[in-house]
Amino acid sequence: MAAGSSSEESILNRIKRKVWLPRGSGLKLGIGDDCAIFRPRSAVEDLLFTTDLLLENVHFRRETHSAEDIGYKALARALSDIAAMGGQPRFCLLSLAVPQWADQAWVDRFYRGFLQLARKTATPLAGGDLARTERLACDVIVCGAVPKNGALLRSGARPGDGIYVSGVLGGSALGLAGAKGLARKRHLRPEPRLALGKFLRDQHHAHAAMDLSDGLSLDLHRLCLASGVSAEIEPPPIFPGATLDQALHGGEDYELLFTASPRTHPPSDFGGLSLTRIGTITARRPGSVRLAGRPLAPLGFDHFQNT
Amino acid sequence: MAAGSSSEESILNRIKRKVWLPRGSGLKLGIGDDCAIFRPRSAVEDLLFTTDLLLENVHFRRETHSAEDIGYKALARALSDIAAMGGQPRFCLLSLAVPQWADQAWVDRFYRGFLQLARKTATPLAGGDLARTERLACDVIVCGAVPKNGALLRSGARPGDGIYVSGVLGGSALGLAGAKGLARKRHLRPEPRLALGKFLRDQHHAHAAMDLSDGLSLDLHRLCLASGVSAEIEPPPIFPGATLDQALHGGEDYELLFTASPRTHPPSDFGGLSLTRIGTITARRPGSVRLAGRPLAPLGFDHFQNT
Repeated sequence: MAAGSSSEESILNRIKRKVWLPRGSGLKLGIGDDCAIFRPRSAVEDLLFTTDLLLENVHFRRETHSAEDIGYKALARALSDIAAMGGQPRFCLLSLAVPQWADQAWVDRFYRGFLQLARKTATPLAGGDLARTERLACDVIVCGAVPKNGALLRSGARPGDGIYVSGVLGGSALGLAGAKGLARKRHLRPEPRLALGKFLRDQHHAHAAMDLSDGLSLDLHRLCLASGVSAEIEPPPIFPGATLDQALHGGEDYELLFTASPRTHPPSDFGGLSLTRIGTITARRPGSVRLAGRPLAPLGFDHFQNT
Repeated sequence: MAAGSSSEESILNRIKRKVWLPRGSGLKLGIGDDCAIFRPRSAVEDLLFTTDLLLENVHFRRETHSAEDIGYKALARALSDIAAMGGQPRFCLLSLAVPQWADQAWVDRFYRGFLQLARKTATPLAGGDLARTERLACDVIVCGAVPKNGALLRSGARPGDGIYVSGVLGGSALGLAGAKGLARKRHLRPEPRLALGKFLRDQHHAHAAMDLSDGLSLDLHRLCLASGVSAEIEPPPIFPGATLDQALHGGEDYELLFTASPRTHPPSDFGGLSLTRIGTITARRPGSVRLAGRPLAPLGFDHFQNT
């Protein structure tokens, strides 16, 4: 796994070959989607589980990110995975490794940002772990719930489906590149699209869904791979001031990407958030994506290729 | 939270004051025990959740720990929390931050050790997260289950209860100090006491239980604090070759500590594992522990005081 020799995709595939989902264990879905799915005995709901690491000097720098923003974002990323499956959050856990530079006031501010979003989204903090370390590291686990068999999966896309995105893309990349104002806010305080995810699930609008965490080009490639399909798209709606490249390959927008049957017509607006059709699912080579008729490489963020 | 200025205990108390458990959320127990407890809607079981960080240069050194042992131990520590509450594991999640020095072969061996214990304990790996970092960090989440209201808590001890430990103590500290053989094995490959935890719960032998992760003196202090009681003990059974200090204050034995009504008589042996009465719960100052009649300081491992 030396840098460049393998992608996150290939590492996940190696792991997937070694794991097993025993029948009767209640596990309905394992590695490979936004969340794992577990069905408790005799329960009326399926539970979703996601974990998200947020690491100093990888996902943030303390010079440029406030403690509140880091706490907020750590939870927002995991909630976005719950939103992508149409789930409602039930609770969260937080493992936090704290370096010497983080004094008590810093840690208090971190929790303030974290708990602010936790309250807003009704996601109580139920536990976690604490340790000392050299670089700040946190791992957030969120449990969400959907009606039995109701989760939106990456694997449900079918040829002919329309491809949609919420909002406008590239804002987080623009903020990361130094822009101020709304772009910076988009980068620091992404909004998990929980209400939209629930709407898409409840109204049966979506065949497949995922959140845009690593960039449209890479995430759509992953959705197509999971569904065994391909995609033809046009340029997506772009965040004001961002470039097409940022909208196509920039990470951390945390908008939702979904596909819907050609017979259904998702609204173009959901409570002030635009829903835009950007293309169509096709039946070419699984995983391949074309933009305006030309191949689009999956250039989004991959921890194991971008290091 | 500068070193020495506050303990893990006091940090947890600060966090606890800020969190809330909403009624109707299904959360039955939050921060402060070995696991959080969640009751899914209409389910017949309660679910237990624990997270455990394992960090390079904090919990292990790569020079002295093999990749297999690190993978094994990462899962063993979290399973031990499930055992402490009398739970049976249902599934686990693994977040792994991988430094450049860990090549693909190392990561494969890490997963081999992890999955070996996962198979043995019927704990399928359901998902997780992967990232690049400078120091290896992993966070293991285990979900376990107990019958409704059946979890063994730290808070159930009552004056008059007998105090018991499984096995012999100090072995892991002895192994950490450089001893080879069984002591080294105890340090590298602790055994989560899942069968014993289930037995204690099923047979209603235990009023309170927790696992010995940070040393008897500190963990018994915590159990007493949670129960609002105190304890009088005699020296515990000692791992061959270990000192009394190692048995009292050494961490990572992962044996179970439990209390039982004076009317019940736990067996002295459980499938080859000794169960030894080491003392009695008393009604003095909550949290205070006396050894052979003299105060015993809670000197076990505390991340925020031992740095």
